[in-house]
Amino acid sequence: MCQSVPCGLADSVVIDDRPDGTISEVLSLIISVGRHTFIPSAAPAPPRPGPAPPRRHCGAGAGHGGGSAPVPRGCLAAAGALGGLGLALGLWRRQAALAAAREDEEEKELRQRFMAPPVSGLRELRRRRRELRSRMELLIMETQAEVCRALADLDPGASFAVDSWERKEGGGGISCVLQDGEVFEKAGVNVSVVSGLLSEEAARQMRSRGKSLKAKDGKLPFCAMGVSSVIHPKNPHVPTMHFNYRYFEIEEADGTKQWWFGGGTDLTPTYLNEEDAIHFHKTLKEACDKHDLKLYPKYKKWCDDYFYIKHRGERRGIGGIFFDDMDSPSKEEVFQFVKSCAKAVVPCYIPIVKKHCHDSFTPEEKLWQQLRRGRYVEFNLVYDRGTKFGLLTPGSRIESILMSLPLTARWEYMHNPPESSKEAEILEVLRNPKDWVH
Amino acid sequence: MCQSVPCGLADSVVIDDRPDGTISEVLSLIISVGRHTFIPSAAPAPPRPGPAPPRRHCGAGAGHGGGSAPVPRGCLAAAGALGGLGLALGLWRRQAALAAAREDEEEKELRQRFMAPPVSGLRELRRRRRELRSRMELLIMETQAEVCRALADLDPGASFAVDSWERKEGGGGISCVLQDGEVFEKAGVNVSVVSGLLSEEAARQMRSRGKSLKAKDGKLPFCAMGVSSVIHPKNPHVPTMHFNYRYFEIEEADGTKQWWFGGGTDLTPTYLNEEDAIHFHKTLKEACDKHDLKLYPKYKKWCDDYFYIKHRGERRGIGGIFFDDMDSPSKEEVFQFVKSCAKAVVPCYIPIVKKHCHDSFTPEEKLWQQLRRGRYVEFNLVYDRGTKFGLLTPGSRIESILMSLPLTARWEYMHNPPESSKEAEILEVLRNPKDWVH
Repeated sequence: MCQSVPCGLADSVVIDDRPDGTISEVLSLIISVGRHTFIPSAAPAPPRPGPAPPRRHCGAGAGHGGGSAPVPRGCLAAAGALGGLGLALGLWRRQAALAAAREDEEEKELRQRFMAPPVSGLRELRRRRRELRSRMELLIMETQAEVCRALADLDPGASFAVDSWERKEGGGGISCVLQDGEVFEKAGVNVSVVSGLLSEEAARQMRSRGKSLKAKDGKLPFCAMGVSSVIHPKNPHVPTMHFNYRYFEIEEADGTKQWWFGGGTDLTPTYLNEEDAIHFHKTLKEACDKHDLKLYPKYKKWCDDYFYIKHRGERRGIGGIFFDDMDSPSKEEVFQFVKSCAKAVVPCYIPIVKKHCHDSFTPEEKLWQQLRRGRYVEFNLVYDRGTKFGLLTPGSRIESILMSLPLTARWEYMHNPPESSKEAEILEVLRNPKDWVH
Repeated sequence: MCQSVPCGLADSVVIDDRPDGTISEVLSLIISVGRHTFIPSAAPAPPRPGPAPPRRHCGAGAGHGGGSAPVPRGCLAAAGALGGLGLALGLWRRQAALAAAREDEEEKELRQRFMAPPVSGLRELRRRRRELRSRMELLIMETQAEVCRALADLDPGASFAVDSWERKEGGGGISCVLQDGEVFEKAGVNVSVVSGLLSEEAARQMRSRGKSLKAKDGKLPFCAMGVSSVIHPKNPHVPTMHFNYRYFEIEEADGTKQWWFGGGTDLTPTYLNEEDAIHFHKTLKEACDKHDLKLYPKYKKWCDDYFYIKHRGERRGIGGIFFDDMDSPSKEEVFQFVKSCAKAVVPCYIPIVKKHCHDSFTPEEKLWQQLRRGRYVEFNLVYDRGTKFGLLTPGSRIESILMSLPLTARWEYMHNPPESSKEAEILEVLRNPKDWVH
C-alpha cells in the first residue's frame, strides 16, 4: 500500500509573458509537501449508490456539503418594517452580517475543497446556481480536486504544480500537474472553462461530428468546459489512465442554444492484468447502468473504435467508455449520467494503483513500458481530436494540452515481442479488444 | 576523433508476416561488425568542385567509378562477318563472354557499393540507363551507401539493420537503421522506389501543393523514389541531422508525364555552436551556388518556414535547405542540382559529428537534449507532410516512416530554461532564425 501525506499551499506567483499574447496571465501556484491549501483535507465523497437521483435544479453549492443559502435581502427589509426603524436597522445589519459570514464560510470551504478558485468565480457561480453550466463547472472543479487528492495520497514525495490561467478571448483554466514523483511519472488534471466566438475552422469540425449549426456572419458564440486528465505511473505494472468530461453550449444565429456533453474514462496498461481490467470496466458499467443499460455496451465499443492507432492496427489501451455529442434524453439526465461517470473515476482506478504501485519490475519491463508510451504519443499527436483541435486553436494553452504526453517515451525500430510473451499478450488484446464484463 | 572500423555482410533473413498483408516480404539483413558486404570499402566520392557539369545523358554506372559499358552485340556480329564463320563464331563467343564477365564484374562492384540490391534490379537499371528515373535510383542508392559508410566509420560498436522490403502495390525499399550505438542513438537511412496508381486522397494532397493533374477515372499512374534519413546522436553536443531527396513522376489522362524533385538537408542542434552552424550552411550554400546563386537563399527560407512547430512558436532546428515541386529549368539541370545536394550531405555533417562525438556533457545537458527530442517528435507527428502522407497511405511501411523518431524523448510540463542560459540561447535562434552565411 502507498502512504498518504498532507500537502498544499501556494508559494509562488509567476506571470506568463509568452510572445503570442494569447494568454494574458498565468497564476502559477506550486503546492509543496507539508502545507495545506489546495489539497482539501476532507475525504472525497463516495459515488452515490442506487439509482440516479430524480431530475431537479440544484444550487451552486449542491453536493459540496456547505452551509445553507444566504437570506434574500428583500425578506430582511420586510422584517425591518415590522419594528422600529432602529431595531429594524439593527436586525437588518445583524442578518446581513450573518448572511455574509455564511457566504464567506461557504466560499472558504469551497475554496479549500478545490485546487484553485473557479474560473467563473464563486460568487458568479452562486448567483447562477440553477444554470446547468454553473453546476457543471462545480462538478468539474470537484472532480479535479477529488482525483488530485487521491493521487497525492498515493505519492508521498511528490508535489503538485497548480496553474490558474486566463484566456484572452474569454475564460481560463486550472492545470494541476504532478511530475516525477515516486509513484507517478506524470499526472495531470486540468479544468478549463472557455467562451467566445467559434472560428470557421472549429465550426467545420463541429459540423463533421454531426452538428448542424447556423452561424451569423460566420461567428458562433460558444461556451465549453471540461475536466481532463492523464495519469502516467512509473511502475510498468500500474496502467496509465485517462478521463475527460466536457460540456458544450453554442448559440445559433436565431438565438437557439445547442448543447451537448462528451467524455469517457479509459485504461492503458503496459501488461495485461485481467482482474484489473474487469474491475475497471465493471466500475464503469455500474456507473452507466444506473442510467440506462444500453449505455455501457454502446460507449465501450465507441471507446475501442475511438482510441485506434490506425497505422499500427492496434488500440491505445484496453478501453473503457467514450461518448460525444450526447444531447438526450434531457439536459438534466445527461448531466446526472456525466456526474456518475466522473464520480466513478477514483473507484475504478485508484484501487489498481494501490495494488501494484510497489510491485517489483525488471529493466525489460520498464523498457516495454517506454515503448508503449511511444504509442501513446503517436495516438495523441496523430489522431486525438481534442489534441489536434487544441493545437489548431489560437489562444490554446499548449502546456495544458500536451500535459497528456508522458514524461519519457521510446521508439525502437522493428521491435517485435516474442510469441507467447507477456508483451505479446497485451498486444493481442490491443489488436482484438475483449469484452471484460457481461 | 571517432575510430573507424570495418563492417558488413548479411547474416540473417527474416520474412515479415504482418497481418495487413501490404508488405509481402521483408528481407532483413543484419550487418555486423567485422564483416564486409554491404558497407563498401571504397572512400565516398567528394562533391564535384567548380560549375555544374554540362547537361548530358549518363549511363547507369556513371558516377560509380566502375568498369566500361559492355560492347553492343550488333557490333560484335558485324565483326564476325569479316572473317570465316568458325573464327567469327569463336570471336563472337569470346567477346560475348568478355562482355558478360564485364557486366558481372560491374554488377558485383555495384552490389558491393550499395547496402542491398536496388529495388528495380541492376539489370533493369542498366537496360534503362539513359532514363532519369534509373539515374535517380542509382543516385539515391549511392547516397544511402555513402552516408551509412560514414556513420559506421564513426560508431565502432554499432551494427546496421538492413531491411529490403517489397510493396504489394509496386516497388519497395531498403531501410538501414543503426540503433543504440556508442555515437548514434538512432540513425536511419531509407531508400524507397514505389509505383502504382495514386489514390484520390494523395492526388488531392498533390493538387494543394500547386500541381494541377488531370486523372482518368480518378486514377493517376505514378512513380516516386527518394532517399530519406534522420541521424540522432547520443552526445547532446552533436546535432541531429535530416535529409531527404526525392523524385516524382505522374502520368495524366492524356499520357503527359509530370515530374518534379524535392528535398533538403537540415540540422537540429541541442545547443548552439555557431562555428558548426556556419560550416553546415556554408557547405549547403556551396552546393547550391554551383547551379544558381538564387537557390540557397530561397531554399534556406523555405526550410525555416517548413520546419515550424506552430503551436510552440519555434523551428525544429537551425534549418538548412528545403525545396519541393522543383521542375525547372530542365529535368537534367534539376537532377544535377539534387545530385550536388546529395553529395553535400557527408561533408556538411560528418565533420561536426567527428568534432563533438567525444565531448563531455552533464546530465542536465542530456535532459535538455531529451526535451528537444520531444519537440522533434511533435514536429514529425503533427506537421511533417511526408510522415502524415505516409501514415495515411495504405501499404506504407510504418517502421520505415517512423524510423525518424528518436530512440528516447521527454516532455516536462512548463519547462522554461533560465534567461541567458545555453538552453535559452538555442531557443532564441529557433524562435528567430539567423542568416549563417552571407
